[in-house]
Amino acid sequence: MKKEFDAATRALPHVQNLHAYVPGDQPQGTGWVKLNTNENPYPASPKVELAVAAQIQQLRKYPEPVSGDLRAAIAERHGLNSANVIIGNGSDNILDLITRCFVSQAGAGQTVPSYSLYPVVVGMSDKGLIDVPFTRDMQLDLDAIEASKAAVFFLTSPNAPTGVAFSLADITAVLSRIDGLLVVDEAYVDFGGETAIPLLAEYQNLVVVRTFSKSYALAGMRVGFALADAGIIRMLDRVRDAYNLDRLAQAAALAAFEDVTYFEAQLQQVVATRERTRSALDALGWFTYPSAANFLFTEPVDATGASGAAVAESLFKHLKSAQVLVRYFPAHALTCAFIRVSIGTEQEMDTFLTVVESWLKHA
Amino acid sequence: MKKEFDAATRALPHVQNLHAYVPGDQPQGTGWVKLNTNENPYPASPKVELAVAAQIQQLRKYPEPVSGDLRAAIAERHGLNSANVIIGNGSDNILDLITRCFVSQAGAGQTVPSYSLYPVVVGMSDKGLIDVPFTRDMQLDLDAIEASKAAVFFLTSPNAPTGVAFSLADITAVLSRIDGLLVVDEAYVDFGGETAIPLLAEYQNLVVVRTFSKSYALAGMRVGFALADAGIIRMLDRVRDAYNLDRLAQAAALAAFEDVTYFEAQLQQVVATRERTRSALDALGWFTYPSAANFLFTEPVDATGASGAAVAESLFKHLKSAQVLVRYFPAHALTCAFIRVSIGTEQEMDTFLTVVESWLKHA
Repeated sequence: MKKEFDAATRALPHVQNLHAYVPGDQPQGTGWVKLNTNENPYPASPKVELAVAAQIQQLRKYPEPVSGDLRAAIAERHGLNSANVIIGNGSDNILDLITRCFVSQAGAGQTVPSYSLYPVVVGMSDKGLIDVPFTRDMQLDLDAIEASKAAVFFLTSPNAPTGVAFSLADITAVLSRIDGLLVVDEAYVDFGGETAIPLLAEYQNLVVVRTFSKSYALAGMRVGFALADAGIIRMLDRVRDAYNLDRLAQAAALAAFEDVTYFEAQLQQVVATRERTRSALDALGWFTYPSAANFLFTEPVDATGASGAAVAESLFKHLKSAQVLVRYFPAHALTCAFIRVSIGTEQEMDTFLTVVESWLKHA
Repeated sequence: MKKEFDAATRALPHVQNLHAYVPGDQPQGTGWVKLNTNENPYPASPKVELAVAAQIQQLRKYPEPVSGDLRAAIAERHGLNSANVIIGNGSDNILDLITRCFVSQAGAGQTVPSYSLYPVVVGMSDKGLIDVPFTRDMQLDLDAIEASKAAVFFLTSPNAPTGVAFSLADITAVLSRIDGLLVVDEAYVDFGGETAIPLLAEYQNLVVVRTFSKSYALAGMRVGFALADAGIIRMLDRVRDAYNLDRLAQAAALAAFEDVTYFEAQLQQVVATRERTRSALDALGWFTYPSAANFLFTEPVDATGASGAAVAESLFKHLKSAQVLVRYFPAHALTCAFIRVSIGTEQEMDTFLTVVESWLKHA
């Protein structure tokens, strides 16, 4: 070696201390019932295939840089202008752009628990993060959010991993009381809950973030978007990579977005399956948060009547041994006694419930 | 409006002053001979279509997060390990990751002229950029590069917009003399010039960046990669979005990469067309830099024997009026008298040369 370079000490200090985001397990092999990453159990609209095929001969050429057709379609649907929309390489990309633009030394804020990516994107920009803890009732602590004085506050509604949606009254109260930006991350809102989009007309300090990953069944395509005041979008565009979305991602998302009939039908199916599954869990006497999302956050009770972290872990492992993958979050007191179950097909949820029954009998 | 938020003054100060990258013109409508953004004139390998089609039913599921198959294939081709490879959403994404990880307050460095994205990505991270100017002979100023004391130095080889490739001796000299990282951006290297990849074995302070946009004809898919010491790749992965490449981009790039026969054939055709076009420009008596890329940087001489910025602009406009789009760079003394012409098909270059002839007759 003629020249050494110790990357571990030459990286910027905050990068040396970063913890990367840990994506949910993506098991290899067949036979898995995959209820761990909130993917849609149904395929994307069949129009996606046609839209992708129509672009295949064009791949040698750069994509349209601003995803203009997609911005226009989204804006029109929500009664806004293209200048109010930005498209990201997944909503994760949008969260990073917001952080890079607006998180000052005052730091960002989040409720705890919520989406575990917020600490990662804030850490990547070497900024601090203020936690506003929930209690078991999962109500927003408005005083604590105001007191955080965060430059940007991230609020997931419906929240993850609980599925609990916050009321427009609550969100309005936050918007009124804070001086910084409120990012309402509506990754799951199509499955229930009220959208904050109407509040954009009155509150310039609001950014609504959405994704095509869940309700549009395009997790594999990495497309998200944000709606906000045109001045905010202009700033976000400055730190956006000039070609952040490839041709096929733009085409796929637009085709899925415009196929409203298909979208509504699969959405209704997921919601119906969620409610049926919830009823089955209620019948077991388990506590489950009211879910406005495509997952259920439930507190298992074993055959002896016990609940808690060990019980949740036991069920998680039992399900995994039967090739049913769910998620559990042992690191936090409010989550460690629960499992999070994504809503699959009717058949997948039957399998899940059958394995739960077998756990109750043999655990 | 119940709450105002002035994004223009609330964005971080460096964002308020950012200038976004200006992509090359992508004209709408038909009839254009598009020789302005160095796209490949031939479509991507026909295997891309099959690979994309095979993924269409999987889009509801998240992509494999690290693009592992692509890392492995690239590593094997170059006699390296997967731990030496990272995949980006375009090489622009890679340049941003490098900046976020390794550009300290010492700043970054670049030669001038070179790829105009470097100032943008460095500015996005609020860091300074030290320019090392070329003179007309386009030789590297090793003393000035060393004196820059840049944390990261960006070197495009073959360079843009000139097409001039630097020798391995020159690149080795830079690696030996600097304390920081040298990023050799080999976006065009498949069209000519020596790759710096063999130097990775001896110089831990080297990062080689490549793209699928040019030689693999996948500009529309946004896939780039970097090769470096495993310690460097580990740091870059920490600031990489967990799912930075969608399923179709991973599949398309892998299919194109593995179709070596197709790749070599279209590459040879582009190089042959470049040399034929160069001969035609030589016959006009114009100065053209020796190109190891898929474009030519040439200094037009008009019918009166004059050259210079006004002459280049006149030719640029004449070509545009005939729907032949090339690029010119009026902002810099070393580039303003030139036009940059991407290598198209044989027929496109015939059209270009015919319009040049008509300009010589009528300008």
